[in-house]
Amino acid sequence: MQTGGHIAGWRHARAADNALCDAEYFQALGRTAEKGLFDGVFLADYVGYHPVKGAAVFAGLETPKLDPLVVLATIAAATRNIGLIGTASTTYSHPYDVARRFASLDHVSGGRAGWNIVTSTMENEAHNYGFEAHLAHADRYARADEFVAVARKLWDSWQAGAVVADKVSGAYTDPARISAVDHQGEHFRVAGPLTVPRTPQGHPVLVQAGASATGQQFAAANAEVIFTSHPTIFTAQAFRADMHTQLAQFSRSPESLKIMPAVTPVIGRTRSEAEDLKRELDDLIPARIAISKLEGLLGNVDLSGADPDGPLPALPAEALAGENSTRDRVLELSEREMLPIAELARRVAAGRTGHTIVGTAEDIAETLIEWENCGAADGFVISAPFLPGGLEDFVDMVVPILQERGHFRREYEGTTLRENLGLAVPPNGFDADPTSRRRPEIW
Amino acid sequence: MQTGGHIAGWRHARAADNALCDAEYFQALGRTAEKGLFDGVFLADYVGYHPVKGAAVFAGLETPKLDPLVVLATIAAATRNIGLIGTASTTYSHPYDVARRFASLDHVSGGRAGWNIVTSTMENEAHNYGFEAHLAHADRYARADEFVAVARKLWDSWQAGAVVADKVSGAYTDPARISAVDHQGEHFRVAGPLTVPRTPQGHPVLVQAGASATGQQFAAANAEVIFTSHPTIFTAQAFRADMHTQLAQFSRSPESLKIMPAVTPVIGRTRSEAEDLKRELDDLIPARIAISKLEGLLGNVDLSGADPDGPLPALPAEALAGENSTRDRVLELSEREMLPIAELARRVAAGRTGHTIVGTAEDIAETLIEWENCGAADGFVISAPFLPGGLEDFVDMVVPILQERGHFRREYEGTTLRENLGLAVPPNGFDADPTSRRRPEIW
Repeated sequence: MQTGGHIAGWRHARAADNALCDAEYFQALGRTAEKGLFDGVFLADYVGYHPVKGAAVFAGLETPKLDPLVVLATIAAATRNIGLIGTASTTYSHPYDVARRFASLDHVSGGRAGWNIVTSTMENEAHNYGFEAHLAHADRYARADEFVAVARKLWDSWQAGAVVADKVSGAYTDPARISAVDHQGEHFRVAGPLTVPRTPQGHPVLVQAGASATGQQFAAANAEVIFTSHPTIFTAQAFRADMHTQLAQFSRSPESLKIMPAVTPVIGRTRSEAEDLKRELDDLIPARIAISKLEGLLGNVDLSGADPDGPLPALPAEALAGENSTRDRVLELSEREMLPIAELARRVAAGRTGHTIVGTAEDIAETLIEWENCGAADGFVISAPFLPGGLEDFVDMVVPILQERGHFRREYEGTTLRENLGLAVPPNGFDADPTSRRRPEIW
Repeated sequence: MQTGGHIAGWRHARAADNALCDAEYFQALGRTAEKGLFDGVFLADYVGYHPVKGAAVFAGLETPKLDPLVVLATIAAATRNIGLIGTASTTYSHPYDVARRFASLDHVSGGRAGWNIVTSTMENEAHNYGFEAHLAHADRYARADEFVAVARKLWDSWQAGAVVADKVSGAYTDPARISAVDHQGEHFRVAGPLTVPRTPQGHPVLVQAGASATGQQFAAANAEVIFTSHPTIFTAQAFRADMHTQLAQFSRSPESLKIMPAVTPVIGRTRSEAEDLKRELDDLIPARIAISKLEGLLGNVDLSGADPDGPLPALPAEALAGENSTRDRVLELSEREMLPIAELARRVAAGRTGHTIVGTAEDIAETLIEWENCGAADGFVISAPFLPGGLEDFVDMVVPILQERGHFRREYEGTTLRENLGLAVPPNGFDADPTSRRRPEIW
């Protein structure tokens, strides 16, 4: 959501005008996605701004970003079935807060909340939260692991039947069914219980998108949905197979993790119309911005001295240090296709995430079916190039073809996001091990 | 909101059944308040649970509490005019988060957000956020002062016209109208800018309820609405006059701060019906719970050894240490009316906040008019004893009388909470002093 999957998509005639602070824009997108029987909508988020190297200041391309849970709660009120997936950072939030907000969203939406777990990567986010620099990659994931463990305990701190609300006896809660959390870890100490009873989904659906080796380990341990990004069906197949191997290390079945590559469908009534649309969109990207974006994606290198029509120069050692899957993907593309800087910049700047498919609705549907049949995907993150027009086209033109070919639902399977994704409700840890229950010692 | 102003109100036949996790319950309350032309609804909040001395564990009386902003966003989507005031703690939150969430709520509601600023007082809240004990009273307020200052700068970091969203030029924002915050203080370092443009209200309405001397100073410096609590019209008059004096120290006019005592109206068609209702409600309070509540309000003293029919014993020195306006109010009531413990407990346990008025709709209306005419109030926090029935009665029975007597609006004056309260939009600090603007150095 937000402005869509193409960086200049917002400039298209069928993109909404200046709508990013507008509840009705988001509610309408939610309704359109629900009409298309999507599992959910997804709000990316950052608590600050991306670096755009080469633009000395605010580049004029950065967009407003409202708090995702406030937006999702307004969408919840305007819809019935659509899942509501929001991003929250484990680096710049506290687990009591995050656990509480997503549990609250799960209640008010009747079981439709999902949490996209991010560890944050931008310096500006660190600077907004009082840190000189952001945490190192490994430290962020160690904190994230503990953060999620604490959140799970908090979500389990009210067991089934804990809310009695018995007007006759005067008991609102059954103290025997509420447990302290008493978490004492390296990053967090949390007494509990949460102020929110266990939710319709047990836990909100846990979503993750980190692609580094550490990110994959974290996903294998914790995630139920992975939003991933692959240039080709082959890398997507390999990634999914590899994730299934990693899942086994945590005694998890492949069914417990849905792997969803991001796809930007550029749809035309004919192939040449689709190609024209793609060209129209790409021409809307200012060259200066494309190169700035490339510099950012490569880890804030400076390309101002390089010839835009020449090859990418060797990067300085500091840009190559540390894990950075985005940088590695760009370098791989540069080597594989031997692109000059300006063209590389346009390519990587155009698609914010994932794989762009340009063609007719039939072409798009066939590609998605092929990816699924070949074990490259359990589903897709449809990142329409511009909104709402691009999403409406997908819903009106591609979804019916997928349904006809027996590759997409004709109605929702259940009422919760978890049910629609085919994910089990996690057992309550305090039920599984009653000796772990401890009465809250609040008083 | 939540379960209403009487501690046992939820047990009444006309109270909702087990509704505290239910979006429709809160949306219906919002609609009823809007039908009654209230300025706003108000969600109290704690990030943990109150101590209830004498009950060794979770007492069975504690209720679920969803995240207030998630709830208010769902009410926003179901209403058009009602203000949406939510509580957030300056002790256990970060200003970037809080500023962002309330700004987001202000946008999605079209200018109806209010922030009830609390500094938090419970040990359990500290324990949920990794602290051994909660901060001392003065430290909490020093942090709160800086917290609000940072939030104001963040709300001003986008100036008017900062969002261009010009499809032709490709500029989404005008960098010259976005300023860094560069706050470096004792408690916080925040770079900025916020990710949210300046909101319809400029800043959300700032609400405060702390009654201690430090709390009053904080309110005089920062608040636009005070929710206060007074046993009599005389203490309310004195408080309001005193606050006006304190306002002058900050060069603020009396019009810039609306003082609203909490009132719990217990309404009957006749006086004796109202008295019966009050008795019915009080009889629903279990005696054990009333005394536990009293112990808590007095600062967690132990009354288990005292005769419930005898007077309150002298409190130990540690219970009398430090500022605690709630404790002082209870002690004052105990002395003034020389009540035995059980009766004192029932009195203080019955009304969660403020002044209870028992009578006909005419009685209630006349009391409110008298308070306003005598300079005891700029308005009221109507804390109905049970919900939704008690609120519906007030809207259907008391509001029309107030209107007839020319003491209440017949339609909303404006579209924002600020307009309906008669509060000015705060100027943008970066406009007022352009030399303070600094380009965000994010890149």
